[in-house]
Amino acid sequence: MDYKKLLNSHVESIPPYVPGKSIQVTSAEIGIPPENIIKLASNENPLGPSPAAIDAAKKSLANSNMYPLADAENLRKAIAENLSFSPENIFATGPGMDSLIDSLSKAVLSSGDEVVISTPTFSFYEISAKTYGATPVFVQRKENFDIDPDEIINSVGENTKIIFLCSPNNPTGNSISEKDIRHICKNSNCIVFLDEAYIEFSTKPSMVHLLKEFDNLIIGRTFSKVYGLAGLRIGYGIMSREIVKDLLKISLPFSISSVSESAAIAALSDFEYIEKSKKLVHEGIKQLTDGIHNNTKFKVYPTDGNFIAVNVYPYTSKQVSEHLLNNGVIIRNCESFRGSGRNLIRITIGTEEMNKKVIKLLSNFKQF
Amino acid sequence: MDYKKLLNSHVESIPPYVPGKSIQVTSAEIGIPPENIIKLASNENPLGPSPAAIDAAKKSLANSNMYPLADAENLRKAIAENLSFSPENIFATGPGMDSLIDSLSKAVLSSGDEVVISTPTFSFYEISAKTYGATPVFVQRKENFDIDPDEIINSVGENTKIIFLCSPNNPTGNSISEKDIRHICKNSNCIVFLDEAYIEFSTKPSMVHLLKEFDNLIIGRTFSKVYGLAGLRIGYGIMSREIVKDLLKISLPFSISSVSESAAIAALSDFEYIEKSKKLVHEGIKQLTDGIHNNTKFKVYPTDGNFIAVNVYPYTSKQVSEHLLNNGVIIRNCESFRGSGRNLIRITIGTEEMNKKVIKLLSNFKQF
Repeated sequence: MDYKKLLNSHVESIPPYVPGKSIQVTSAEIGIPPENIIKLASNENPLGPSPAAIDAAKKSLANSNMYPLADAENLRKAIAENLSFSPENIFATGPGMDSLIDSLSKAVLSSGDEVVISTPTFSFYEISAKTYGATPVFVQRKENFDIDPDEIINSVGENTKIIFLCSPNNPTGNSISEKDIRHICKNSNCIVFLDEAYIEFSTKPSMVHLLKEFDNLIIGRTFSKVYGLAGLRIGYGIMSREIVKDLLKISLPFSISSVSESAAIAALSDFEYIEKSKKLVHEGIKQLTDGIHNNTKFKVYPTDGNFIAVNVYPYTSKQVSEHLLNNGVIIRNCESFRGSGRNLIRITIGTEEMNKKVIKLLSNFKQF
Repeated sequence: MDYKKLLNSHVESIPPYVPGKSIQVTSAEIGIPPENIIKLASNENPLGPSPAAIDAAKKSLANSNMYPLADAENLRKAIAENLSFSPENIFATGPGMDSLIDSLSKAVLSSGDEVVISTPTFSFYEISAKTYGATPVFVQRKENFDIDPDEIINSVGENTKIIFLCSPNNPTGNSISEKDIRHICKNSNCIVFLDEAYIEFSTKPSMVHLLKEFDNLIIGRTFSKVYGLAGLRIGYGIMSREIVKDLLKISLPFSISSVSESAAIAALSDFEYIEKSKKLVHEGIKQLTDGIHNNTKFKVYPTDGNFIAVNVYPYTSKQVSEHLLNNGVIIRNCESFRGSGRNLIRITIGTEEMNKKVIKLLSNFKQF
């Protein structure tokens, strides 16, 4: 078989997804036992999963020989209630919000189409577009990482199907103003996908209320961050009923495991855990920002997420992240985020103890 | 926004996936409490999940705030060891084997391409092909549901990318001989996808050994059947390293939940449970086959899976499945399987008690 001849030609051009380094792989590489390694590279919740979610998951394990409902109906209802929307406006899917992005791309993209991406940002938008043969048009953010809404609107051509926005933005931490989102939705005759993976940590409001105003807006959410369930792979989107119908049609049935679905439903109302997670992040942002500011010459960017972006100039992000890695702390070298340059690192907010270790290691580094 | 203009034109033509009716929905519909409903409609394992899998899943829940490895490396290794292959020949993915089929379709199919499907069979092959704009060419099985390998080979055109085969076949239960698989692999210059979801129940051997001979063969497997983990959504495929690389590139990262991955690894070596599951199925096949044969005039087909196909002529499959449904037993009306006609039902092998109830209800029905 001439396999390469069978393969869609655009597959070659899909960039690999670069995940945060795992504790397992790092432990094998640097010879430190897993329990002594701190991972602050994937914006996971350092508190562990929501206890209510774990209880619900344990209970549901006994029925894991049975398929869940094909469209995660129970979770869709719980999310809808939580947001005061109808379940018909909710698309719940796995693995994670990536699956929502993938389903949307699958529904609207094909060869010759374009998407607009404001870099640096989450790399999966580009991967997803290229997976379906579409061409990403990159609009670089300003020096302070704010977007330029008019440049984004001007980049929309007649073949543009999706504008990908992320607020708070991964990996830079800043948000997009309501004024800018409105301006883009109003002046773009295509889908505006707004990734709100980190919105629960933000002191600024979500843009869900704009869904009633703009039928081209889709808001993406996840259970991987504030709910502490990254391992269970659950995402969801809020959008028009019409789009939900097509995404249900085009996406894989039973995409969320029955155990994950039970956990997610319970996590939604584990308010104590949610508040604790937010408090930890807000205190950690202050601790890390002050600590890095007082002990290094690095620039710390303000953040609305559960991570901070740090410019480590005159060092490279590679040098600094390797220094931390060799000392058992995994953070993110942002080189794999297109448009980040060579000096940006991203550090997930950890526990007070973890943050302390990061500050200490960064302080050491300036003495090289 | 003119949303329908943005949508890929082939989305309209994707048929809906029709799952087995759930206990939850049935209970609400017919007013019988869920615990009194028997579901034999989705070929789930009536023993419940593998106990070793549940133990492993419970332990792993504590870490479900962390992402798993992006490519399910630990599960790939465990499967490879189990099959005496290299992990580089294994692609492990979720949700279920559907995700393998979807990734393969995504990699090779686009508008203008064809796939060959021998009906009646699992409906997801058709859905998956149409999702990527390809055209399915249907080759009807013989009256005894055997395939005609030459007709399949003759249906392969220059735009054919995949031949989908299923053995034991869902919903008919019969297997494809090694001779026929060889003949098709040898004489088709395209991918031959062999779905072995039910192979562990069969007394006939798997075709994995043919992978060393044919580079166009891909074998699909699942943890949803003999391992009793349908709710956890885990599938895998065995194939050439070259294809694994591309599927990893094109599929979603972290597609298997960390909890599902731990459960699957444990399930692989829960030999006691596997043997118990097989024994239950083999005894149940005899019980149901004899019971239906002795008490009705329906034709029961021989099966290598954990289900039996029954021709309920002169009644329709709709009549019979509704009769059972109204009495709290969900089985499968095969009308949603293209090419099944109007008289075929599929019954999952249950426990002795469940099977008894099915036989009784089918016996009643002939007296209508």
